[in-house]
Amino acid sequence: MFIQQTKANQFDSNKVVDKVELLKIIPLGGCEEVGRNMTVFEYGSDIVILDMGLQFPEEDMPGIDYVIPNTEYLKGKEKNIRAVIFSHGHLDHIGAAPILLKKLANPQVIGRPLTIEMIKHRLEDFDRNSSKKLKTIYIKDLKDKISLGSFNISFFQIDHAIMDAVGVILQTPVATVIHPGDWTIEKAPIGRDVINYHELAKLKRPTILMLEALGATNSKPPVTEEEMLSNINKLIGDAPGRTIIATFSSQIERIKQILEFAAKTGKKVALDGFSMKLNIEIATKLGYIKIPKGVIIGIDKTKDYPDNKIVVICTGAQGEEMASLSRIIAGNHKYITIKREDTIIFSSSIIPGNERTVQRVKDNIYRLSDNVYHNDIMNVHASGHTNIDGIKQIISEIKPDYLIPVYGNHFHLKECARIAYRMGYLKDKVFVPDNGSVIKFTLLNTASRQLAKGELFNRVNQINAEMLKDKVPSNYIFVDGLGVGDVGEIVLRDRQMLAEDGMFVIVVVIDSQTGKVKGSPDIISRGFIYLRESKELLRQTRKKVVEIVEKTASHTGPLNSVYVKDELRNKVGNFLNSKTSRHPMILPVVIEV
Amino acid sequence: MFIQQTKANQFDSNKVVDKVELLKIIPLGGCEEVGRNMTVFEYGSDIVILDMGLQFPEEDMPGIDYVIPNTEYLKGKEKNIRAVIFSHGHLDHIGAAPILLKKLANPQVIGRPLTIEMIKHRLEDFDRNSSKKLKTIYIKDLKDKISLGSFNISFFQIDHAIMDAVGVILQTPVATVIHPGDWTIEKAPIGRDVINYHELAKLKRPTILMLEALGATNSKPPVTEEEMLSNINKLIGDAPGRTIIATFSSQIERIKQILEFAAKTGKKVALDGFSMKLNIEIATKLGYIKIPKGVIIGIDKTKDYPDNKIVVICTGAQGEEMASLSRIIAGNHKYITIKREDTIIFSSSIIPGNERTVQRVKDNIYRLSDNVYHNDIMNVHASGHTNIDGIKQIISEIKPDYLIPVYGNHFHLKECARIAYRMGYLKDKVFVPDNGSVIKFTLLNTASRQLAKGELFNRVNQINAEMLKDKVPSNYIFVDGLGVGDVGEIVLRDRQMLAEDGMFVIVVVIDSQTGKVKGSPDIISRGFIYLRESKELLRQTRKKVVEIVEKTASHTGPLNSVYVKDELRNKVGNFLNSKTSRHPMILPVVIEV
Repeated sequence: MFIQQTKANQFDSNKVVDKVELLKIIPLGGCEEVGRNMTVFEYGSDIVILDMGLQFPEEDMPGIDYVIPNTEYLKGKEKNIRAVIFSHGHLDHIGAAPILLKKLANPQVIGRPLTIEMIKHRLEDFDRNSSKKLKTIYIKDLKDKISLGSFNISFFQIDHAIMDAVGVILQTPVATVIHPGDWTIEKAPIGRDVINYHELAKLKRPTILMLEALGATNSKPPVTEEEMLSNINKLIGDAPGRTIIATFSSQIERIKQILEFAAKTGKKVALDGFSMKLNIEIATKLGYIKIPKGVIIGIDKTKDYPDNKIVVICTGAQGEEMASLSRIIAGNHKYITIKREDTIIFSSSIIPGNERTVQRVKDNIYRLSDNVYHNDIMNVHASGHTNIDGIKQIISEIKPDYLIPVYGNHFHLKECARIAYRMGYLKDKVFVPDNGSVIKFTLLNTASRQLAKGELFNRVNQINAEMLKDKVPSNYIFVDGLGVGDVGEIVLRDRQMLAEDGMFVIVVVIDSQTGKVKGSPDIISRGFIYLRESKELLRQTRKKVVEIVEKTASHTGPLNSVYVKDELRNKVGNFLNSKTSRHPMILPVVIEV
Repeated sequence: MFIQQTKANQFDSNKVVDKVELLKIIPLGGCEEVGRNMTVFEYGSDIVILDMGLQFPEEDMPGIDYVIPNTEYLKGKEKNIRAVIFSHGHLDHIGAAPILLKKLANPQVIGRPLTIEMIKHRLEDFDRNSSKKLKTIYIKDLKDKISLGSFNISFFQIDHAIMDAVGVILQTPVATVIHPGDWTIEKAPIGRDVINYHELAKLKRPTILMLEALGATNSKPPVTEEEMLSNINKLIGDAPGRTIIATFSSQIERIKQILEFAAKTGKKVALDGFSMKLNIEIATKLGYIKIPKGVIIGIDKTKDYPDNKIVVICTGAQGEEMASLSRIIAGNHKYITIKREDTIIFSSSIIPGNERTVQRVKDNIYRLSDNVYHNDIMNVHASGHTNIDGIKQIISEIKPDYLIPVYGNHFHLKECARIAYRMGYLKDKVFVPDNGSVIKFTLLNTASRQLAKGELFNRVNQINAEMLKDKVPSNYIFVDGLGVGDVGEIVLRDRQMLAEDGMFVIVVVIDSQTGKVKGSPDIISRGFIYLRESKELLRQTRKKVVEIVEKTASHTGPLNSVYVKDELRNKVGNFLNSKTSRHPMILPVVIEV
């Protein structure tokens, strides 16, 4: 099944290479940390992009709203971009679209209907009416085929935690790329068949599987949709009071299933959370879900029914400050206050980095309710990501010639590669990229010359694959408020330093005639010590400041304020450090009058 | 087995209560978050304390070194403190000792030898020679009994991730408290027997089990010591290059086992990391471990042997910046640079809150080595904490009359209580405390009167247990540099705000005669925007500042600098926000000349 590769330096020097055909695959994000997924495929003058996601900020990025992929590589190549395909509507795949589509001269976008609708809403959030200018190609049927220059695009069904997620096939003259996007293999799906990938093994070779590797360190058996739903339904059915289910706003299918169960059992469902209501509205409009009549009520109407007839489905399972669940817990929700007999279900996983926040949410919920359920206690959430066994299964079904693990931390990618090695893949068939890595597939087209000699057409054998040493720019582009990319390492380092020990501004007015300090130096400090309780330290510091300034300024000649400031910074810094073992940022202001 | 409880309001009013005996249990830490474990037991004028731990700072505590228990309740009661018992030498149980022992008038301390030696070293780190003043009672034998006023103290063996961990029994006239401290049940220990707790069911009743609840949401089967060690030994045995094992410096037993395996197989071991070497030195001095001759070499000598003969055991599995492993990864280690064929083993768990840091450490290691092992890949670490089954087992073996889950987040405690309820415990036998909660056990001693009437001695029935509504002070005491408790909520809030969007200092010099601004206002900003690239914004801001000041100062009468500052703060704040959507901290300085 696996095709022989001939290395570049092994080519028979008697053969003349007529034409070099080249496919470049460049992941711009998603290969070092989870998030900001975006991949560039380039063949000749054709570029196709997959996804434009955001990454949530890490703890050492204070004040940052989110991070987007660095698209410097595409600068000047905007006209080559044939389209941006979006695999599904999660923010780590569409979140950077408003900024990046605009930046890249508004290329057309391709996606299934729900995904495109979600992108449109995100565009509107950024810039009213901007979605009207969006050039779209809807994938109406999974059998659709789209030709984009040298790329022939087709699709396949995958399972993920959102409706309309799609796997993408990019066929080029050099090789066929298979990219499932985010995926899992659901073993007991509800209302649809179990997916297998045997068909993809028949695609034109060589095939390159770009595989989300997040599951490569997960050996836990997956929770099935069937088990999850049966647990949730049992909890709803047995609930002594209301049932409050916190889940991701994009879990449209799960919400639909709960609505159906509620309808069957005579319960009423209130949806709460702006994005959740919006998503259900979009899905309803698209005909993806049919809400049983009379089952949905407004959150303000929940009081009109007996508690055990009420199901609330809400956002905020990650502890997002303004989301529904957070307001309910904080007692700031207009209509819902948790009662001890309410059943609270976290039908959600913890997004990496949110561990502590979610722990606090749990702590607070456990204070209010005696009936809290989450995956540690009962299987009430099925993940949209696979595990080690799933990775083995998809590789053995697709049997790709090359494997590029993507979407995860570097260690996930490496572990995914290790799984492939254990399955018999050779090291030169597997590429573990970083963000910005360029993986080059070259077809050395010696076919015609060989045909003339009556030899076998062996074009497939002539593939050369390598990952280049040089990467294209991939450093973080921070979005902070209205600024995109204007907060850099220096500003972040200052923020970290300010967070650590605060700051200490010293304002001295110097009489330029005498070199003496006029009045008492002003001190403004925040985040360092509690000033009201540190009067003695401040008194000593002021004294020290006067000493330093007058000693430094007493040199003959005009006042050297740079020197005075340096002296203040160093000596006051050392003084405060000796008294407190802290290092506030010292900012001297010297004013001559 | 379970003893009837009579509630206070059910007492027969014909009986006169002669004497009230009262045991108060007050957890001062460890019951809302993990860490800063400390419990006060008070009976009459006798106080016994268990542990004085620190808590590592959370992400919303920038710059804080650690948090210690609030001991305000003990103020004025120092003379009543009979002793502080330390259950084991981990920092979350001994880390606050230097500060708190001093604060509480240096009470005597009780512990097993290794624990006391570790406390002494911690005291020395704080204050040279201070350990010499430490009053100590060594637990030389687990059968030791210590009488402390009305408390009779005895001990029992438990399994935890450090040598000399001990369970404590505090017998009082009212009730017997059983406190295992941190614990697990090791199913396949090496060199010692499997522990069971049936003996503790025979203690004088009523018994109160204070139980570490961290395992209450963990349903994973535990990794046994035997399995872990066999995996580690196999990896060492098969290693193509060096084996580098990162573990906690307090894992003395594990280090000992690795040393023994290395000796048997002719390998050399280098220990790296100050605290690890220190702990091994202490354990050797105490005779707890006997290092096989010739097996340990200096880290500087590793180059003198073939790579596959070398095992390095080091600190830094949590990504601690200055620890051995971090320096190795960063390329800052004097003697060790990781080679691709080295085997790296993380024989450690992730301390909650360190998830992201450890992920980065893993990413970096995976970049350097092809042979990385951690518990996701292979069982190379056995936890010192139990799981749900262990909690069920210990409760069913000890059969306590009362259960107080402790040591964990609130949700762990609540889940531990749920386990007990499912085992048949009634709600009034289980108390879920917060930090500062007071749990009161009262013995209403009507025995003598009843005996005089010839009735049965039924003292045990007269217990009344309740958790008081009012808590004693338990808010965070932050340690930051030399300051203990001087950083409070205000300073922290400022640090968070500074971290979020930085700060913006405006210095204006005003001519008091004319009310005009002299020269151009000075602006100092950090963590807000990159100043060099924001010249236009700064120019506009300066212009705005002059306008605001001159308009505000132009009111008749003397300059109202408070008003000028308020105006600057609000208007410049709004201006910058309108331009950037950020909220830097605005700090105006107004100088009149």
